[in-house]
Amino acid sequence: MNIVEIQDQLNQQGLDAYVVMHNNRFIGQDILPEEHKLKKLCGFYGSDGLLIITAGRSFLFVDGRYELQADQEVTNADVEIVHQVPNFLNACRFLAERNLHHVGYDAWCISVNQAENVRKKIKNLNLVDIGDLVGEEKPKNVQIFSREARFSGCTAHEKIADLAKWICQNDAQYFLLTSADSVSWLLNIYARDLTYTPVVRVYALVDMNGHCVLFGDHVQTDDLPLYDFRQMENMLAKLNNVRVLYDPEVTPVKMLGMFSEQVELCQAQDLCRMRKAEKNPVEIQGMISCHIRDGVALTKLLHWLEKNYKGKTEWDVVEKLHEFRAQQKDFFSESFASIVGSAADGAVVHYQPHEDSSRLLEENNLLLIDSGGQYLDGTTDVTRTIVLGQPSADMKRDFTRVLQAHIALARAKFPEGTAGIKLDTLAREKLWAHGLDYKHGTGHGVGCFGNVHEGPINISLNGSGYGFRENMVTSVEPGYYKKDFYGIRIENLVYTSKVEDTFDDDVNFLMFRCLTKVPLDKKLIDKYLLSAEEQAWLNEYHQSVYDCLTPYLNEVEKRWLKEACSPL
Amino acid sequence: MNIVEIQDQLNQQGLDAYVVMHNNRFIGQDILPEEHKLKKLCGFYGSDGLLIITAGRSFLFVDGRYELQADQEVTNADVEIVHQVPNFLNACRFLAERNLHHVGYDAWCISVNQAENVRKKIKNLNLVDIGDLVGEEKPKNVQIFSREARFSGCTAHEKIADLAKWICQNDAQYFLLTSADSVSWLLNIYARDLTYTPVVRVYALVDMNGHCVLFGDHVQTDDLPLYDFRQMENMLAKLNNVRVLYDPEVTPVKMLGMFSEQVELCQAQDLCRMRKAEKNPVEIQGMISCHIRDGVALTKLLHWLEKNYKGKTEWDVVEKLHEFRAQQKDFFSESFASIVGSAADGAVVHYQPHEDSSRLLEENNLLLIDSGGQYLDGTTDVTRTIVLGQPSADMKRDFTRVLQAHIALARAKFPEGTAGIKLDTLAREKLWAHGLDYKHGTGHGVGCFGNVHEGPINISLNGSGYGFRENMVTSVEPGYYKKDFYGIRIENLVYTSKVEDTFDDDVNFLMFRCLTKVPLDKKLIDKYLLSAEEQAWLNEYHQSVYDCLTPYLNEVEKRWLKEACSPL
Repeated sequence: MNIVEIQDQLNQQGLDAYVVMHNNRFIGQDILPEEHKLKKLCGFYGSDGLLIITAGRSFLFVDGRYELQADQEVTNADVEIVHQVPNFLNACRFLAERNLHHVGYDAWCISVNQAENVRKKIKNLNLVDIGDLVGEEKPKNVQIFSREARFSGCTAHEKIADLAKWICQNDAQYFLLTSADSVSWLLNIYARDLTYTPVVRVYALVDMNGHCVLFGDHVQTDDLPLYDFRQMENMLAKLNNVRVLYDPEVTPVKMLGMFSEQVELCQAQDLCRMRKAEKNPVEIQGMISCHIRDGVALTKLLHWLEKNYKGKTEWDVVEKLHEFRAQQKDFFSESFASIVGSAADGAVVHYQPHEDSSRLLEENNLLLIDSGGQYLDGTTDVTRTIVLGQPSADMKRDFTRVLQAHIALARAKFPEGTAGIKLDTLAREKLWAHGLDYKHGTGHGVGCFGNVHEGPINISLNGSGYGFRENMVTSVEPGYYKKDFYGIRIENLVYTSKVEDTFDDDVNFLMFRCLTKVPLDKKLIDKYLLSAEEQAWLNEYHQSVYDCLTPYLNEVEKRWLKEACSPL
Repeated sequence: MNIVEIQDQLNQQGLDAYVVMHNNRFIGQDILPEEHKLKKLCGFYGSDGLLIITAGRSFLFVDGRYELQADQEVTNADVEIVHQVPNFLNACRFLAERNLHHVGYDAWCISVNQAENVRKKIKNLNLVDIGDLVGEEKPKNVQIFSREARFSGCTAHEKIADLAKWICQNDAQYFLLTSADSVSWLLNIYARDLTYTPVVRVYALVDMNGHCVLFGDHVQTDDLPLYDFRQMENMLAKLNNVRVLYDPEVTPVKMLGMFSEQVELCQAQDLCRMRKAEKNPVEIQGMISCHIRDGVALTKLLHWLEKNYKGKTEWDVVEKLHEFRAQQKDFFSESFASIVGSAADGAVVHYQPHEDSSRLLEENNLLLIDSGGQYLDGTTDVTRTIVLGQPSADMKRDFTRVLQAHIALARAKFPEGTAGIKLDTLAREKLWAHGLDYKHGTGHGVGCFGNVHEGPINISLNGSGYGFRENMVTSVEPGYYKKDFYGIRIENLVYTSKVEDTFDDDVNFLMFRCLTKVPLDKKLIDKYLLSAEEQAWLNEYHQSVYDCLTPYLNEVEKRWLKEACSPL
């Protein structure tokens, strides 16, 4: 249905509004282009958003990253763009404030937590599950493949045994996994379904004895028991006198109604989510290794750009970068759509150039490149900001401040268990000191051949309270955005490692070790703003970049990198 | 009743355990010596704790501050000391883990939030309200007095009007205040009941028209409508078809049962709690002013100590400090029991010397003095660590690190609304960098002629998410404790103030302005560990201390202070 047809439907059912989420039943997961409901309804093609349809106007919620893009893409005058974080709670609050109390929604797309949150905070709202009115997603047959243990470091058998033990410890018989990346990690099964994330979009039901069945539509597998969602409903309805664990953060409200009253449903944090955040030694080695190959690709790009940027567009950079990445061993796909923003485009935090409309690169401008790759042994995500030609004094000062913010966090030592929300300030204060800030997180967890944004850890202003343990991977990516002029962001991936010889025997201290190996543009660094420690950090970093990458470069590239990595 | 009598009672009622909280029905408030239930039951006299009595053993919960003290004070071999944060949730978890499911408690002493938290997190626990078994508190007639508007800066009339408006905005008819310091602040009424906090322990019921009645036992007032708790029960039971707001964090579970079913009880954050955290201009001026007088008292003490410490005990310092404070204009009382810890005593975070047993001050040791005063115009809280004689290299290094942590936070600039949990790291990281830490918060909100620890803001590891606004007062007090040797803490009170000329027009930035004016011991500072900015901060601070205090000192003291405040 389109907006007008949905309005008609609302009218017939006596409802005031219908809320359309960006996601489908795999909450928190990427979607396919053909599943993009907001695109179908109003033309907006961003990777996050929410649409409220009422009898009169419709309202598209987008956050800071997509304000500009929404303005450009939404041409329907009856769709108003609302600058609010697009979550269900905000949508419901918006409706309640306007006395629109009878609200239709699709219970497949709302998690139990989201629904509970609304119920707690908003009174007098009558939420009615009327399913998906936008239209069924197209079936597409997805072939599952296994990832070898030399990459995963742990067999599915071992991981399931661990999970089964945890189910028993919780006095339960089953755990229902509804998070696609948890299922993929648990079973070492992957697919080429989504463009940037190699996960299989299926649910799994694991029992206390380690038996496991999968639920999903349009998925093919030879050796795992698999049922479609209709069969799932029947199977779940038959469970009796058992305790079933589920994670309310990723389980659709819809699921709760499928169980009989003889089932005790128990909320629990998805164990896989925790386990996969702590990388095993094989995964850490894989991350180190793929970051060197990724660094080679980036370095080749930076070298190429220096001589060849004139006459090229942002899109040309996207393509060239893909070309260099695709040459690397075990390359699988990009890990997200490359962000290449020159000049004012760089100030649009999640700007993505398109083939048919992208800016020409011009001299004496900044270029921000944020991109990543999926390799069979790991996932990368890196941002570099470079100057084409010569920088202005402002560019140098601002870049150096962002660099100081980056270094402050990258050098931090902290007790095991410290939550990311506490570390965020270490980077941000370097900008706060000058009355500056950036409107995005400072770091996000990263999967290993999984989601490039992976919970439960992150480093952000309103971050999760989940504490860092050893061998967790996060990005470190402070930035600064000067509207209409340029954007600066410096992003490395790092992993946590124990500090040897700490003073206090009770407490383990952690530090970050850097995975990303790509030179920083020294033309943009004002050496005299850096402390001796900051200079030392940068020189050591560049030395390690040079040491790691040089075996994989040709002579010309090597010479270029040597100069790029020479001490300040 | 004593422990044995209570065990008897448990037996008769078929209960497994009885939980005794430190607080009475004024949750979060100080208690009188004669109200100290834990002292009566087991001898423990700390200012926080919790006792679980079971048929066999009893269990005293104390946190890190009181572990040592509990060991000393509890002589009953049937009382086991448990090193856990003494809150109701931990007690209930402890009982559930031991299969003790039928638990008696006093519903006057548990807040709605505490009870809900337990209900959510612990299954199969049967909580039974059996009231106070320890014994009624002794009646004591407390006389209420008013605080003049020249100190409070705002009349009760104005504050109540604001509160009544808020009640209307919440579509309610009443707000039930159960927090003594909120009632005192709202009505500008105070008492000499508690030793260190001048609040009146009464509840208040305010209606949408700004009418207000008080509820309390053993309180006397001439001009405010006041009813005892028994009368309160009758009055509340008669309310009908109204919506009543209450703050679940400070409202006893007991209260909820007093209302008829025709009353809609609505949870809300106590508006007074928020309002009083943002000091008005008269209060800020009062805080500035009383801190100068408090600084004079402290400076006189430090000067006196230098020449006279030999042969004196920690208790002598407590008394001398009181003598100097009591000489100051508008002095009312200490704001808490002075902590004076020399040598190893300093490493006990909340060590308090007693008249009959306190350590002799010895040469070449550190002395930690943490104390504060209530003045009619404000409340102070300050910690200084000094060396008697000459410091060791370790002392200097550790003191300087704590100083760096202090300065890092004191100099911070941050956007309005930043929560204290985010600022905590700025201080702590200076110690983390060396594998060190301290097991207490970095800062707490402070009242103005109110609680020396006042919510909702604080700066701590697991702090409140409440954001800083302009004119809020907090302590800044990192420390370091070397067990069996010495303790170091440097505490100033500061208030938030707008940074002029910030870059981003959307966001106000805040900075801290220092209230406390007391010199830091330069003998303990290793200048060469400090950056140029840190040295500049210290020199400027000392200059302002000298400028503020010198008019109130005699010639000898002036000379001493000039030297103490001379540049590094």
